[in-house]
Amino acid sequence: MFLEAIYHRPQDQYAYSYDENTIHIQLRTKKQDIETVEIIYGDPYDWNHSTWNAVTNKMNIAYSDQFFDYWFIAIHPPFKRLRYGFLLSNESKSCVYTEKGFFEQPPLDDTAYYFCFPFINSIDVYKPPKWVENTIWYQIFPERFANGDPTLNPKGTVEWEQQEPTPTIYYGGDFKGVIDHIDYLVNLGITGIYFTPIFKAFSNHKYDTIDYMEIDPQFGTKETFKQLVEECHKQGIKVMLDAVFNHSGYYFAPFQDVLKNGEKSIYKNWFHIHDFPIQTKPIPNYDSFAFEASMPKLNTENPEVKEYLLNVGRYWIKEFNIDGWRLDVANEVDHQFWREFRKEMKKIKPDIYILGEIWHDAMPWLRGDQFDSVMNYPYTDNALRFFAKNEIGAIEFIETLQKYLHMYPRNINHILFNLLGSHDTPRIMNIANFNKEKVKLLFAFLLSTPGTPCIYYGDEIGMTGEQDPGCRKCMVWDEDRQDLEMLAFTKKLIQLRKQYPLLGNDGEFILFDANNTSNHVSYIKRNEQEQLLVVFNNNDTMQDIPIPLNLKDKTIIDLWNEKEFAAHTNKISVQLAPYSFTFLLCKAI
Amino acid sequence: MFLEAIYHRPQDQYAYSYDENTIHIQLRTKKQDIETVEIIYGDPYDWNHSTWNAVTNKMNIAYSDQFFDYWFIAIHPPFKRLRYGFLLSNESKSCVYTEKGFFEQPPLDDTAYYFCFPFINSIDVYKPPKWVENTIWYQIFPERFANGDPTLNPKGTVEWEQQEPTPTIYYGGDFKGVIDHIDYLVNLGITGIYFTPIFKAFSNHKYDTIDYMEIDPQFGTKETFKQLVEECHKQGIKVMLDAVFNHSGYYFAPFQDVLKNGEKSIYKNWFHIHDFPIQTKPIPNYDSFAFEASMPKLNTENPEVKEYLLNVGRYWIKEFNIDGWRLDVANEVDHQFWREFRKEMKKIKPDIYILGEIWHDAMPWLRGDQFDSVMNYPYTDNALRFFAKNEIGAIEFIETLQKYLHMYPRNINHILFNLLGSHDTPRIMNIANFNKEKVKLLFAFLLSTPGTPCIYYGDEIGMTGEQDPGCRKCMVWDEDRQDLEMLAFTKKLIQLRKQYPLLGNDGEFILFDANNTSNHVSYIKRNEQEQLLVVFNNNDTMQDIPIPLNLKDKTIIDLWNEKEFAAHTNKISVQLAPYSFTFLLCKAI
Repeated sequence: MFLEAIYHRPQDQYAYSYDENTIHIQLRTKKQDIETVEIIYGDPYDWNHSTWNAVTNKMNIAYSDQFFDYWFIAIHPPFKRLRYGFLLSNESKSCVYTEKGFFEQPPLDDTAYYFCFPFINSIDVYKPPKWVENTIWYQIFPERFANGDPTLNPKGTVEWEQQEPTPTIYYGGDFKGVIDHIDYLVNLGITGIYFTPIFKAFSNHKYDTIDYMEIDPQFGTKETFKQLVEECHKQGIKVMLDAVFNHSGYYFAPFQDVLKNGEKSIYKNWFHIHDFPIQTKPIPNYDSFAFEASMPKLNTENPEVKEYLLNVGRYWIKEFNIDGWRLDVANEVDHQFWREFRKEMKKIKPDIYILGEIWHDAMPWLRGDQFDSVMNYPYTDNALRFFAKNEIGAIEFIETLQKYLHMYPRNINHILFNLLGSHDTPRIMNIANFNKEKVKLLFAFLLSTPGTPCIYYGDEIGMTGEQDPGCRKCMVWDEDRQDLEMLAFTKKLIQLRKQYPLLGNDGEFILFDANNTSNHVSYIKRNEQEQLLVVFNNNDTMQDIPIPLNLKDKTIIDLWNEKEFAAHTNKISVQLAPYSFTFLLCKAI
Repeated sequence: MFLEAIYHRPQDQYAYSYDENTIHIQLRTKKQDIETVEIIYGDPYDWNHSTWNAVTNKMNIAYSDQFFDYWFIAIHPPFKRLRYGFLLSNESKSCVYTEKGFFEQPPLDDTAYYFCFPFINSIDVYKPPKWVENTIWYQIFPERFANGDPTLNPKGTVEWEQQEPTPTIYYGGDFKGVIDHIDYLVNLGITGIYFTPIFKAFSNHKYDTIDYMEIDPQFGTKETFKQLVEECHKQGIKVMLDAVFNHSGYYFAPFQDVLKNGEKSIYKNWFHIHDFPIQTKPIPNYDSFAFEASMPKLNTENPEVKEYLLNVGRYWIKEFNIDGWRLDVANEVDHQFWREFRKEMKKIKPDIYILGEIWHDAMPWLRGDQFDSVMNYPYTDNALRFFAKNEIGAIEFIETLQKYLHMYPRNINHILFNLLGSHDTPRIMNIANFNKEKVKLLFAFLLSTPGTPCIYYGDEIGMTGEQDPGCRKCMVWDEDRQDLEMLAFTKKLIQLRKQYPLLGNDGEFILFDANNTSNHVSYIKRNEQEQLLVVFNNNDTMQDIPIPLNLKDKTIIDLWNEKEFAAHTNKISVQLAPYSFTFLLCKAI
């Protein structure tokens, strides 16, 4: 037994209150090293269980990755508190794992040996807004979605689609353009829009804010924006804005004041300026985003700055009834600021959604006091490496997927912002080397995994583009040049996900099978009534994939082809064309 | 190489900002499995180091326990942000460990593979009050310390020391008694008093509050308390009070109101009442501390309760200038309450000390947003098992000590509240089976390890007592019955700790040697100038303990015996009597 591989700490995904009556406990052990894990548990003040019939319970392996098995159990302690240890067994050995180490027998002299979950306090239970779990997001880069009002065009605006994008080009995308195409979005089926920044800024991407209280004039007025939000809400579409609070733009009035008045500026403590006079070269002598002189880092610890930004946050909720804030470069802003941000925003609108831009393991921001969710780039990376780039095989793909499913508590997994690409990455069509079937597999994967999927504008019609500026091309509205098959495909996937909750966050995720030779992967989503079998053939040849489930005489529905059939033997298999997939629904076993 | 034993996550003790310019990184590997660990690091936005000459750096093993080596390095990134991975090598293999897994060579195509420490934001740096690190605490249970004003005696008060304590007995201890004996405390050398609760309550221990805004009349008036704090401050002694906010007492007016008015009480949401009418048997039908009907759990999520308790917290700071709050049953109160508590208390008195009563791994409360420190019972348990109970040998003792030193960031270790016992445990004299020499070893250990030591009233004069009520006997003031040798011993230890910062939190802790046969342990505390060698002989026979340091021709000072000598060979040893120790100071090597 490899004791050194065993890990548990009563925090994060390892021990958390799933809801007000349930504690989830997880344990990591070396892969295939332990045969059974039982949890030994009880009330900390009544370990001998006179009040509660709790002794031991079997845990199950929820996920496995390359190195580890992750064991899981849900417990409902009647007094909302728990002491617990783990009884681990394999052929050669059994032992008890507690906070104070390993023992041959459960220590009986003192409950203090055991791990402690002190109390489920309702306010500490992670409770994201209910609507998020079922949202299908769509990301819009407003300068490039649609030009609905040419009178707003910035100086030098180029005809729609008539030139390749450059870092400084303008095409005149605006709110009217979005309003004009709401039918398109409704028809596609999306239920939430994430807008990259819309506030007055210098660049075409607007991540260098000039005025947080004003709409950028190229997009329209506050009136137009209000109308846009109302139109969206009328159509059941939520609206999320981008809060760029890590840094301002160079032309933000307080920074201009510092540039002008130097040390005498009343705004000098709004930034982190190392010394005066201010220099921008060779690198700025003030903290900035990366080394961008045009993006001076805001001093979010300064109470004036904090109040200013919190007020920005409040203003757009109160006045325009937006539904979410996406937080740019969220990991570089102090935690204390985000704690206050959450408190203040939820005070105004309890079901406001707070999404952080964090590309890496984001546990420190997801403990209930800061963000509801983060942009799930680790998921992206894994999906692209398998389906688009052929960098990894089926087994590594499915193991990494499970590693990430284990990374956060389950209630967080349900609203992770899953994406295949964004304005910060090359388009999936390019990454998949223009193989449309591979792009379809990516979409099918995105729409059938736990989390909340987001489609980057235009990916659904097969748009192409390399890393910025290529990935920020104008949305193609000419249907002749839209990939209508891809559009119908994504639309159908979205419909299916809405119709069958098992494609989304319902049920338990169970890995089923993965094979590096055939390069196929299959997993099950299962609730008490039904199970959904998802199979991907990520191979350039037809595959006959055995389904090692006993489905004999069960009715099976092929959701994609809307066909119903019954298995007549207990050995069935599915034939999948190159780069194709199937969703099979049947009763739970 | 045992990859499964390797652990790092960029949070908690594994990656934290030690100060505004320093990031501490730690890595766990299987014990004696890896020969060298180098950290590969750079700026996330300039991985190729044009701005900063950072490539790789060797890490050192800071601690080792039974299973693991814990590697450590301090890094000073000029732009306050870091990406990093680990290059691990032993005879058979070398590999690179990143957030995305293990690689044979450092991945070069994308810095996103690496672990991320996004930015050192000053406000997120853990900054405990400066004075705490050098404080020597003394815990007073006010009912039992001294009776200075018999006119305040509660009804039925028993003559001081004249009966064995029972759970309901009163001896009339009070503030006047403490004031009368301040000279004793000054003479002992302590610099902080932790008072168990002093507010109006029903029981002799006062953990069942009746009125949080009043002093219990048996202790004196607010005037007397003010005088007590002033006297203490005059003598350089800080005063910490006990905040019992998890639960009130049965006779707390709001709970009485609920008992009287049931569902109609305006206070019914001040508690967690399951149903009406209220019952106290067989177990209360409301949440309580343990199953104590007399201690109904407060609903700290209710804004009224929160404001009431925060106001209590503020009041005793503002009006009486107390220096710290010790939080009773701190782990069962919601995190959100503690976050607000910290903010509000620090607003009034920035250097107020916030200490949580948590008996187990308390990382979730020590992330800078809640407590400054916790009562370090894991430390207690380890010390007692080795020195007092002979339950573990020298090696397990020193390994467990290191496990706990690794449990939290280093700046937290410096102010952990180290204790050998309290009003909740049997006295050390009893645990050590009345072996005074063992008790002395415990004190010598307490006063020579990182953290802030606390002496439970009377332990310094050899008082005895089993678990409560035995451990709450009246303080013995008759010098004939005080163990004056023990008193002189603890006093000398305190003096030495004040005189030689290496006995306290200065320098790095380095384990040196431990042997189960001789049952001796030695460790070094080292700063740039000096090193202090601490050796314990926890054996009932004399031991000749070799010191495998080359100290030839170095001047060595025996701090306890105030003797100076020089080693004439490079092999020296120390002879230690049964159950004795030595502190040897010499220049750093």
